[in-house]
Amino acid sequence: MRRVLRFGVGWALILALAVPVAASSGRDAPTKRLVLIDDDVVGLSGAPALLLQAPDVEVLGITTTSGSVWRDTATAYALRTVEIVGRTDVPVVPGATYPLLNNEAATARWEALYGRLEFKGPWTAPAPGGASGAEAGTPSPAVVPSLSIGNPVTKPSSEIAAAFLVRMVRAHPHQITLFATGPMTNIAIAQSLDPSFAANVKELVYMGGSLSPQQTLDTPAAAAFARGFLDTPRREFNIRWDPEAARIMAHGAWPKVTMVPIDPSTGTQWTRAFLGSLKPAHTPLTDALRTGLEPGFPMWDEIAAMVWLEPGIVTRAETLYIDFDTSQTAGYGDTLSWQAADSPHLGERAQTVVLRVDRAKMETAMRALYMRRIRR
Amino acid sequence: MRRVLRFGVGWALILALAVPVAASSGRDAPTKRLVLIDDDVVGLSGAPALLLQAPDVEVLGITTTSGSVWRDTATAYALRTVEIVGRTDVPVVPGATYPLLNNEAATARWEALYGRLEFKGPWTAPAPGGASGAEAGTPSPAVVPSLSIGNPVTKPSSEIAAAFLVRMVRAHPHQITLFATGPMTNIAIAQSLDPSFAANVKELVYMGGSLSPQQTLDTPAAAAFARGFLDTPRREFNIRWDPEAARIMAHGAWPKVTMVPIDPSTGTQWTRAFLGSLKPAHTPLTDALRTGLEPGFPMWDEIAAMVWLEPGIVTRAETLYIDFDTSQTAGYGDTLSWQAADSPHLGERAQTVVLRVDRAKMETAMRALYMRRIRR
Repeated sequence: MRRVLRFGVGWALILALAVPVAASSGRDAPTKRLVLIDDDVVGLSGAPALLLQAPDVEVLGITTTSGSVWRDTATAYALRTVEIVGRTDVPVVPGATYPLLNNEAATARWEALYGRLEFKGPWTAPAPGGASGAEAGTPSPAVVPSLSIGNPVTKPSSEIAAAFLVRMVRAHPHQITLFATGPMTNIAIAQSLDPSFAANVKELVYMGGSLSPQQTLDTPAAAAFARGFLDTPRREFNIRWDPEAARIMAHGAWPKVTMVPIDPSTGTQWTRAFLGSLKPAHTPLTDALRTGLEPGFPMWDEIAAMVWLEPGIVTRAETLYIDFDTSQTAGYGDTLSWQAADSPHLGERAQTVVLRVDRAKMETAMRALYMRRIRR
Repeated sequence: MRRVLRFGVGWALILALAVPVAASSGRDAPTKRLVLIDDDVVGLSGAPALLLQAPDVEVLGITTTSGSVWRDTATAYALRTVEIVGRTDVPVVPGATYPLLNNEAATARWEALYGRLEFKGPWTAPAPGGASGAEAGTPSPAVVPSLSIGNPVTKPSSEIAAAFLVRMVRAHPHQITLFATGPMTNIAIAQSLDPSFAANVKELVYMGGSLSPQQTLDTPAAAAFARGFLDTPRREFNIRWDPEAARIMAHGAWPKVTMVPIDPSTGTQWTRAFLGSLKPAHTPLTDALRTGLEPGFPMWDEIAAMVWLEPGIVTRAETLYIDFDTSQTAGYGDTLSWQAADSPHLGERAQTVVLRVDRAKMETAMRALYMRRIRR
């Protein structure tokens, strides 16, 4: 014990070489909340930057998956994110490139039968006249475009995401919050690798699914997004990319699950005013956010991060049984939800579904996190 | 020609014996709008009473179908309705008792897999302690309970609904508005009987389907109904009772289709105030409405009737391609909708979808119709 105290720095260094994550936790108070982020990282918004900036949170690693972009692009974004926030000690671990069962040809066939999908991640056709190397429509999973937030110089872990997730949860049973803000492919594989994986996580928080979202804000951008809800209230991309993985996730024996679907996002929006308010901080993070973020989009993954960090922002939530449609029909990937009395109880479980958040409270808390200057 | 003019009354009588409907139109100005009502009639609300009261409308007949109640009960309600409004000259023609493919055992099996259905028409289990003879949960299609609005003394037509529909449309090609406010079984059979049926109708107006309804009114009843939309925004009973028939309807070559889904109903509600406002008329119709109608329910079929009679009440509508899910999965009977560019174009057609109506304007027009004293 004395040796540890005396040679604290050296001990941390040894641990850093052996188990980088443990070192990272070791250097802070042991009361930190442990979190694993699994994400199809794009840009600097989303869960990673917020969770990395949170003072009482220890990010054990970021696992990446294809989704909005191919896995390798998500990995590059994740690496660049930890560089910008100065946390290159946090491992970035590449995960699944393809969904479990879904594929591009099946998606084209599905569209012929059931209608055009607005967004298909990297299978989205490039906009006519769009710049080559655009993130959507990237032909090959291995092609990583030049990132708007700069290209990373650091390298990802050589471990496989699902194996890393299993290893971390075994090392910290019942202590880790699993934070999933992309398709569920890595999570489902981890569940398959280790049947006790879900039960040994402390809780799962995820952004995904859609119940019955409605336009809340009176802006042109909000109206444009709302137009989509009218025809597809139950469709959300994270789930639609890999419905089978989402169903495996939904059937997991997680001690606690918090779902952040599309619904609360309709009350939020990235605005120039919010981005402008970050200016005084002048950190690499706030500078990159201000210049790299396109206003007008709703907040999605950020809500999930903030709901977990500041539960007081939730103004409406319901406990619902949740599953996802894996039938190869019009409803493929649609969210299924029930009150307890209506649920078929065929493996689906109760989840806390966040339906509404206090936008002002959330933005205040987000601003404080983004502007936080971390002394290391 | 002169003979016709001279013996006008006799001619009308001959036609009345041969083609009762023509007689009915004959006695009014030829500019009347012709309408056929196909409905799972329950009570006095809904489309029949409103259309029968409309001064510029000639109801050629009311065909009945199972839906909210069994066909025979709907027939009894339709007969009682024409008695109350003093229009026993309008034929009531019984239609389909069972859906095309759906059945009670399949519904039970579906519920075991995909969750409890809140309302199943006559397959709904009677509420514990509910009175025997209740409309829901009636064990046998032939058992007609005692009607809250009194039992009819008149008899239905001996014709079959679908055959009657085909005959009427052939007699008045491109002149009839087909008004469907129940499940689509009779309509689908008529389409199958006569491939030109849909194209020879002037237009189809129907109440059915659901896109993305949201609570609009701040009342306990509205909140209770809205709770259901959260889990099943795409489910509506008329369609869910007979999804295959609905799909056949959706693929018909109607010159024009107006869909009134659940969505606009959230801005409406039967209230004691509205029912009370009918009191001064003291007609058999207003008296029966005031005493027989339970306040709190949204308006459904009434919106369809009023949208057709007073198009100015529509405050939001969209042209969408509409179909219905007939896969034997969680989405069985769900409404499918697309903008033109997204639609698979596999038989589904453009429909005018009513999303919002002006409640005050609608109630004013409804009140005037209900209170109208018809001199015959």
